[in-house]
Amino acid sequence: MSSKIKPIKSVSLVEQVEQRILEFLKENRFKSGDSLPGEIELAENLGVSRNIVRESLSRLRMLGVVESKKRKGMFIAEPDILSGIERIMDPDLLGEEAMQHIFELRLVLEVGMSELLFIRKKDSDIVKLQEIVDREANDPLCKTDLQTRLAYEIEFHSYLYKMSGNGTLNRFQSMLLPVFHFMMQQESKAAAEPKRGSISHNDLVETLRNGTAYEFRENMRNHLTPHFSKLS
Amino acid sequence: MSSKIKPIKSVSLVEQVEQRILEFLKENRFKSGDSLPGEIELAENLGVSRNIVRESLSRLRMLGVVESKKRKGMFIAEPDILSGIERIMDPDLLGEEAMQHIFELRLVLEVGMSELLFIRKKDSDIVKLQEIVDREANDPLCKTDLQTRLAYEIEFHSYLYKMSGNGTLNRFQSMLLPVFHFMMQQESKAAAEPKRGSISHNDLVETLRNGTAYEFRENMRNHLTPHFSKLS
Repeated sequence: MSSKIKPIKSVSLVEQVEQRILEFLKENRFKSGDSLPGEIELAENLGVSRNIVRESLSRLRMLGVVESKKRKGMFIAEPDILSGIERIMDPDLLGEEAMQHIFELRLVLEVGMSELLFIRKKDSDIVKLQEIVDREANDPLCKTDLQTRLAYEIEFHSYLYKMSGNGTLNRFQSMLLPVFHFMMQQESKAAAEPKRGSISHNDLVETLRNGTAYEFRENMRNHLTPHFSKLS
Repeated sequence: MSSKIKPIKSVSLVEQVEQRILEFLKENRFKSGDSLPGEIELAENLGVSRNIVRESLSRLRMLGVVESKKRKGMFIAEPDILSGIERIMDPDLLGEEAMQHIFELRLVLEVGMSELLFIRKKDSDIVKLQEIVDREANDPLCKTDLQTRLAYEIEFHSYLYKMSGNGTLNRFQSMLLPVFHFMMQQESKAAAEPKRGSISHNDLVETLRNGTAYEFRENMRNHLTPHFSKLS
């Protein structure tokens, strides 16, 4: 039993209508592609103005629950759990703590996804990763220019998410990218010479080619040591 | 260079206003706690109706970018990257593919977060986990009742997220819980006898107590084998 009495939360009419529409959709087992009752009908049944209904639908559209088609009205969409995050994932808008959490999340995901990579890797993925690594090795700017180095870093690691075969994971990381990028820049500015782990991108590709999920997981953990060692 | 020409995306006035307000906040380096210009002022400057501004602000409030205080107007909130997800994380609303992705995400996170656990574990955490494990071992219903077993399963694993010391990770998992729960029920129904990995919850606590992050990661991987073995 909870020991604290919960405060009464003031909920706006728009939020209540949003909630009621969501419940209505669930109770009636609406599926993606089904068309929604019209604004007028909803407003009448809910006993609220059309403006309120319109605003609630706008919020549900933003959550990816419904979508509107021109001259055809509103339809149930395949909900998109990540649509809201995308808009605000900006280092300028996030606080320091949120940024730190997101950066840690990156480390957790990359160590944890080894298994998915080994289940779904294709020969063409290895070829593509090797191509990135070779380009990185032969680019003279990599030694001197931080931005160039970060760009290869991001290209390599982003490809791994893509390989995971998990669209949600892949989109999640593409949203987190601005934060990763910002944090890596901060880290690099702080250190005289940016540290590298003992395991290189090239080693990781070799492990994907001939190693096991277990070996890749530990190699990735070592590759990320410069980041892990900063956590407390 | 992209090889495909991008389709023109129709953007509603509300969405345009939302975007402009977001840009305005970033450009002027608004920080959480700052108060926002009033609706009338925004409407005048943007050259749109107050209704449009109100609807845009409602969407930004839903994203957690702004918050309204009674009789004090709108303020910049600490943005909450997870607020939108929470509302739609419902097995009834998600498609099968999204559910599968989220379930995989759980496996990735739990294997990957070992390092955070070892950096942040406290003696009291181990005591708490041992208490859950003991309760589970002594509960006769565990052998016969699926719901009881799932409840312990979820209590144990949820506590690990809490221990990670990463609030974003912890809240993320509490949102994903309904999906985890649904998927585990489906799995259990499919199998005559629900499988367990060779590593028990008790083994995991013992590893947290006396082992290393490396050992915990591999033990967690083994603990989750029944789930991993279903992936393709």
